[in-house]
Amino acid sequence: MTEKELFELNITEPDRSVYDRAKEHFDSLAKPIDGFGNLEDIICRIASVSGNVHPDISKRAAVVMFADSRVVESGVSQTGPEVTRDVARLTGEGRSTLCVLTAGSGIEVIGVDIGMDCDDAIPGIIDRKVAHGAGNIEKERAMTKEECLRAIDTGIGIVKECRDKGFGLIATGEMGIGNTTTATALLCVLTGEEAGKVTGRGAGLSDEGLKRKINVIENALKLHGPDIHAGKEKKISDRSNAFEALCRVGGLDIAGLCGIFVGGALYHVPIIIDGLISAVSALAAARIVPGCERYMIASHSGREKGTDIALKQMGLKSIVNADMALGEATGAVMIIPVIDMVYRVYNSGTSFKTAQIRQYRRYNK
Amino acid sequence: MTEKELFELNITEPDRSVYDRAKEHFDSLAKPIDGFGNLEDIICRIASVSGNVHPDISKRAAVVMFADSRVVESGVSQTGPEVTRDVARLTGEGRSTLCVLTAGSGIEVIGVDIGMDCDDAIPGIIDRKVAHGAGNIEKERAMTKEECLRAIDTGIGIVKECRDKGFGLIATGEMGIGNTTTATALLCVLTGEEAGKVTGRGAGLSDEGLKRKINVIENALKLHGPDIHAGKEKKISDRSNAFEALCRVGGLDIAGLCGIFVGGALYHVPIIIDGLISAVSALAAARIVPGCERYMIASHSGREKGTDIALKQMGLKSIVNADMALGEATGAVMIIPVIDMVYRVYNSGTSFKTAQIRQYRRYNK
Repeated sequence: MTEKELFELNITEPDRSVYDRAKEHFDSLAKPIDGFGNLEDIICRIASVSGNVHPDISKRAAVVMFADSRVVESGVSQTGPEVTRDVARLTGEGRSTLCVLTAGSGIEVIGVDIGMDCDDAIPGIIDRKVAHGAGNIEKERAMTKEECLRAIDTGIGIVKECRDKGFGLIATGEMGIGNTTTATALLCVLTGEEAGKVTGRGAGLSDEGLKRKINVIENALKLHGPDIHAGKEKKISDRSNAFEALCRVGGLDIAGLCGIFVGGALYHVPIIIDGLISAVSALAAARIVPGCERYMIASHSGREKGTDIALKQMGLKSIVNADMALGEATGAVMIIPVIDMVYRVYNSGTSFKTAQIRQYRRYNK
Repeated sequence: MTEKELFELNITEPDRSVYDRAKEHFDSLAKPIDGFGNLEDIICRIASVSGNVHPDISKRAAVVMFADSRVVESGVSQTGPEVTRDVARLTGEGRSTLCVLTAGSGIEVIGVDIGMDCDDAIPGIIDRKVAHGAGNIEKERAMTKEECLRAIDTGIGIVKECRDKGFGLIATGEMGIGNTTTATALLCVLTGEEAGKVTGRGAGLSDEGLKRKINVIENALKLHGPDIHAGKEKKISDRSNAFEALCRVGGLDIAGLCGIFVGGALYHVPIIIDGLISAVSALAAARIVPGCERYMIASHSGREKGTDIALKQMGLKSIVNADMALGEATGAVMIIPVIDMVYRVYNSGTSFKTAQIRQYRRYNK
């Protein structure tokens, strides 16, 4: 995929009439109008994204992108790239936290090496390595344009493969030591937020470590930020500037996930956002290929403040807020059994008509 | 149970050492410290409540209390007591929203007629009717002390039966047209909140209907409130005043659920709070029998503002916020598959030790 091709991608709107028919069906069920609240909206959006009032979402996957960033060398996390590899290894063996979390729940875990800093292939992990880790954003670009395009294209391709295999729902996740740093930097560039206000402790940092992390992000913003910001306009909405921001301060995992979100919009598969890194990747996708956000589903807020900021920029809102900080798609997959429960009512619930109960009226909220 | 016996109930604290051992176990797993956030706290609390680091929570029930209140005659809802009966009938037949929602998830739905305004028994619903509906709180007491005690005792008894049958987790719910009115009135008496600020639209009301509902609650507060409030102190913490408040402005469903929460604390079974009515019942339990709140688990916030207010009074916080307004324990049961997922990691997750990864350090947040 070339830069030009990426910027020329046009996203069609999910089918509003399917949404409306799905909502009408919800209203016919023997329960208070809008009783399931935002979960009704999620089901209706899944229907409209799929273009089917009763879509098949029985096959679902969690795609986890593994990548490293040399920003770790600046001391932004308590562990190093060996832990990215360790978790990839456990994922390949079905022993990672995500694998155990989803065991028996019918969610296929698809681990992808999009840019780990290692030579050996990890058994059970799909090798789509674009580079041996991204650059240290404090000192250099994270990726060349070509690398970034390749990572995005990889994400798009994975969604196509999933769609062809019948997956109706994809949860996103990542593992890459140092990637709350790159995701926060990208969030700041895309939204104009200040590093000091939005930077969190990732997988755990001392006060001193947090200060260092903020400093690293500020240095990255100073180095890369100014000339891609459109003058006084803090928020980047220009497609090519957003892409350039991703190349400079993002990471291979973020670019790969960005591709997953673009792919969801292209192939009409609803994509579930996880926490910070996933949400910022989603925001990058929405800026580079506007309209993608209509194919996304928010899941949880988590401990990193940036997640909600990114979601809000896209008009999305999480439904779980459990102060999690784990990654790997763990928050995204948690809403799947909840969606399943409500979807069961949607598909098999008792209607007012068959129950011979007078239907509730809708009043303005 | 006599009033005296109720006030003499003493709740022991859940075992803190079990909590600590459970937390230590979580920290040994190959994931960031506190990675599952509040869900780790929930699992550790379930363990400490059960007095077992690895409790058996494979059997779980959703107890739904059905009752009517003559406050409906004051025009506070868009339907009448016939809908309470209709939903009870559907529940008995396994066709209610809750039954479809939980189908196949191994949650046993236990419907209890604690005070429906009908003579005929509903097949599949346990008949523990204390009275044919509660009084219209705008004009009269909801219950006599004896009725209220009987309803509380019924709830306690149900938890004992569940415990004896091996249920390790109980979700609470209710169905009773008009019960967001009684629950909101009770919340106002117990906390000093103003009806105009906290009253919601229940299962759906027009602006005019909402105004009428607020007016009814204000009338009830004027009639019943003043002499049970302890002078300037807006919040009721006195056990006997809290009980009197429940008798005057509560309902049979609320009293029955209050009993479930008391029973959870007496029999060491964690009880999951649902939405507004369940949360206010929980708060009543915590005021009448202090310490009960340590045995409760919050689930979701829902559309009614009062839920979070009640939870906050007990130091609890929901993890799902999906703007739901359905009742029947639908929000409470939704967190069970999420708990199950995290519990699977807790029980079978890979440790740092077996994965040969250096354990993360805990820093102050």
